[in-house]
Amino acid sequence: MAEPLRIALAGLGTVGTGVIRLLETNRDMVERRAGRAIEVVAINARDRSKDRGIDLTPYAWVDDMQAMAERADVDVVVELVGGSDGPALSLARAALDAGKGLVTANKAMVAHHGMELAELAAIKGAPFAFEAAVAGGIPVVKGLREGTAANALTRIYGILNGTCNYILSEMERTGADFDAMLKAAQEQGYAEADPTFDIEGIDAAHKLAILAAIGFGTRIDFAGVRTSGITEVRSTDIAQADALGYVVRLVGVANLDEGDDGTCRLMQRVRPCLVPFRHPLAAVTGPTNAVVAEGDFAGRLLFQGAGAGDRPTASAVVADLIDIARGLAGAPFSVPVAQLETLDPGDPGERVGRDYIRFTVADRPGVLAEITAAMRDAGVSIESLIQRGRDEDGGEVQVAMVTHEGPERCVTQALALLDGSPSLTAPPLVMPILKD
Amino acid sequence: MAEPLRIALAGLGTVGTGVIRLLETNRDMVERRAGRAIEVVAINARDRSKDRGIDLTPYAWVDDMQAMAERADVDVVVELVGGSDGPALSLARAALDAGKGLVTANKAMVAHHGMELAELAAIKGAPFAFEAAVAGGIPVVKGLREGTAANALTRIYGILNGTCNYILSEMERTGADFDAMLKAAQEQGYAEADPTFDIEGIDAAHKLAILAAIGFGTRIDFAGVRTSGITEVRSTDIAQADALGYVVRLVGVANLDEGDDGTCRLMQRVRPCLVPFRHPLAAVTGPTNAVVAEGDFAGRLLFQGAGAGDRPTASAVVADLIDIARGLAGAPFSVPVAQLETLDPGDPGERVGRDYIRFTVADRPGVLAEITAAMRDAGVSIESLIQRGRDEDGGEVQVAMVTHEGPERCVTQALALLDGSPSLTAPPLVMPILKD
Repeated sequence: MAEPLRIALAGLGTVGTGVIRLLETNRDMVERRAGRAIEVVAINARDRSKDRGIDLTPYAWVDDMQAMAERADVDVVVELVGGSDGPALSLARAALDAGKGLVTANKAMVAHHGMELAELAAIKGAPFAFEAAVAGGIPVVKGLREGTAANALTRIYGILNGTCNYILSEMERTGADFDAMLKAAQEQGYAEADPTFDIEGIDAAHKLAILAAIGFGTRIDFAGVRTSGITEVRSTDIAQADALGYVVRLVGVANLDEGDDGTCRLMQRVRPCLVPFRHPLAAVTGPTNAVVAEGDFAGRLLFQGAGAGDRPTASAVVADLIDIARGLAGAPFSVPVAQLETLDPGDPGERVGRDYIRFTVADRPGVLAEITAAMRDAGVSIESLIQRGRDEDGGEVQVAMVTHEGPERCVTQALALLDGSPSLTAPPLVMPILKD
Repeated sequence: MAEPLRIALAGLGTVGTGVIRLLETNRDMVERRAGRAIEVVAINARDRSKDRGIDLTPYAWVDDMQAMAERADVDVVVELVGGSDGPALSLARAALDAGKGLVTANKAMVAHHGMELAELAAIKGAPFAFEAAVAGGIPVVKGLREGTAANALTRIYGILNGTCNYILSEMERTGADFDAMLKAAQEQGYAEADPTFDIEGIDAAHKLAILAAIGFGTRIDFAGVRTSGITEVRSTDIAQADALGYVVRLVGVANLDEGDDGTCRLMQRVRPCLVPFRHPLAAVTGPTNAVVAEGDFAGRLLFQGAGAGDRPTASAVVADLIDIARGLAGAPFSVPVAQLETLDPGDPGERVGRDYIRFTVADRPGVLAEITAAMRDAGVSIESLIQRGRDEDGGEVQVAMVTHEGPERCVTQALALLDGSPSLTAPPLVMPILKD
């Protein structure tokens, strides 16, 4: 049997300890599949004394995390520190620069600096892998990088944030409002104390940008992802959607679009969407993640599973290590980084589809006429409209509509016409209807 | 750029022509991902003159298929002839023996001879890949071989035959009987003129045996798969299941079991099962396939997509070719074939679970007492029971029950007690309830 693959593990949070636990629990199996042992030769974390629920005495603690990258006895650095920049990025750069392999679960870092790191890895001939950065234990990075490699993908989309999916599906199940379900998610450990990255869609945008690069063979463009979170979704929206045959999910969607000048553009959006009951994503509840890739030959493929958690994420980290141990780690973004295309972001106005629009309005005559006139003037055709009366506690009046298929720019224009109108008591919420 | 990967394509049915069409349509993308061109240097099929809807003049036709394996200008033989033995197997052996790579979509051949071929491939150092043999375009062979490699899998199961799934979900949707829906499936092109391999569960058993070997690191044991098909499922069973909160699906299930003597055994079964409404497999309708792998760290992963068809299957064939072109084809069964374990088949009687049992009985006093007494004597505890009266056209009387959780051997024993009883006018049907 070959020499062990020697790894340095930076970061001992839930994922880091999960990796150690996996390597201990499944040692023999991992060795058989990797063709050699995977040995942890150095560990580091911010706080040495913290009780992590596992015995770390068998592992060599190093005080200087950055020095891990320099050690002659390390083949691969596993970065589980987190944060898009700072120590994580310094370590990642140093590891690759020293010709070590790099395995990371750090979606923010890959979304922001993945191109630079891939270039460095290519120059140094070092493996660089990040299955754990997208959708936890689901092997979707591999699925898109290798499984669908023969396809031109037409669309990549999915439920990429377990926190939001937990909150939305619990709002659906209980009828409760966002704030209450966010609190429940925090109590259940599905949301962090500061939930901003999750509920504003940023975490999902990180993952979408990574998947889009792999699936379309384009350079990562995180800045080009248009993102809205779920904080404006109300229980009444979910009830309306249900009455119309939809559930509400935070969905990241990436596709290639042809611009007016005929050039190909990359459209990337994370938004709460209305998903038809019969679509597989509608059945995805709780903290589960699911990714759909539509290929010109493979058709619609669905990858579903636990999107986070120490054990699923550790499973993905060690899968990368096994690939590296076997010499089976390919180009991190499916094609060599130098061949990735640079595309401009698409124009969201050019999207043609149907939308759900909810207005919160003053309860007085003429409001409905004002809204429908704006729609008409902007060329938006209304398929259905429901006005809900004031509820018992004298709340707001809501008007919800679904448009016929049309260019998104018309909806934007209609809302611009209504902007500042005293008839609207809160900003309207637009959610696209996911195309089947 | 490196030399092209030169392939010989044997078999030009729908999949073979699909592969050619894919390599033509996505030529540039495939070349970028493969790191070199994939070039078809020889083709062969039974009938040269047949119109296949594509122009084959650019390709070098060879008359002797078996000679493909000997050609110096061929790197990989793509076997799309079909059939577990005969010319397909001869070609596969000859190709590997000559040190060529082998890519195949032939589930029957891999299920019957996969171990021999893998051994030959290992000796010759030749790649051997068969993503297309299981679940069409879904990259589930790769998913289990590499994606879940860090996990001890506890169970692998799924909907592995699109024909059966089409028939069962159409029976569910329309209320029609098996014979009518088989005919519809044949008319739609979802079932062959001789549907035996599909409807008797043999095709699903081929795929299950392959997945079990990869997922559990065991030698393929196709003979050990206990298989029943869907021909005995009636529309009334589907209606009863619906009333109880289930759909009926043909599910292949593989898991490791501990025998009485403490040795590990491999349980593999293909049977129509009752799937709870909320389980992801319940939402899988039509000719779609779906595979669930439950890992000790990854948790429950679902892979879903088109299980057959020329284009999805071609997608899987070319994905294998891209892996080979890049030098990324690993051990075909996840660990080197010499390290696969040989396990005895598990004892189905030891399964502990719940079952649906449907009796077709004579309409006379005492029948119910006879059945329930047999259940009691065999130690089967009944959770619910429905007796349906004779229907309008004077048909049979049916008694359907769901058991409490218990050992399967008790159900078998109860049925043995009733065997030959004049009260039963047809053999009973047992369908397990899929564990969530």
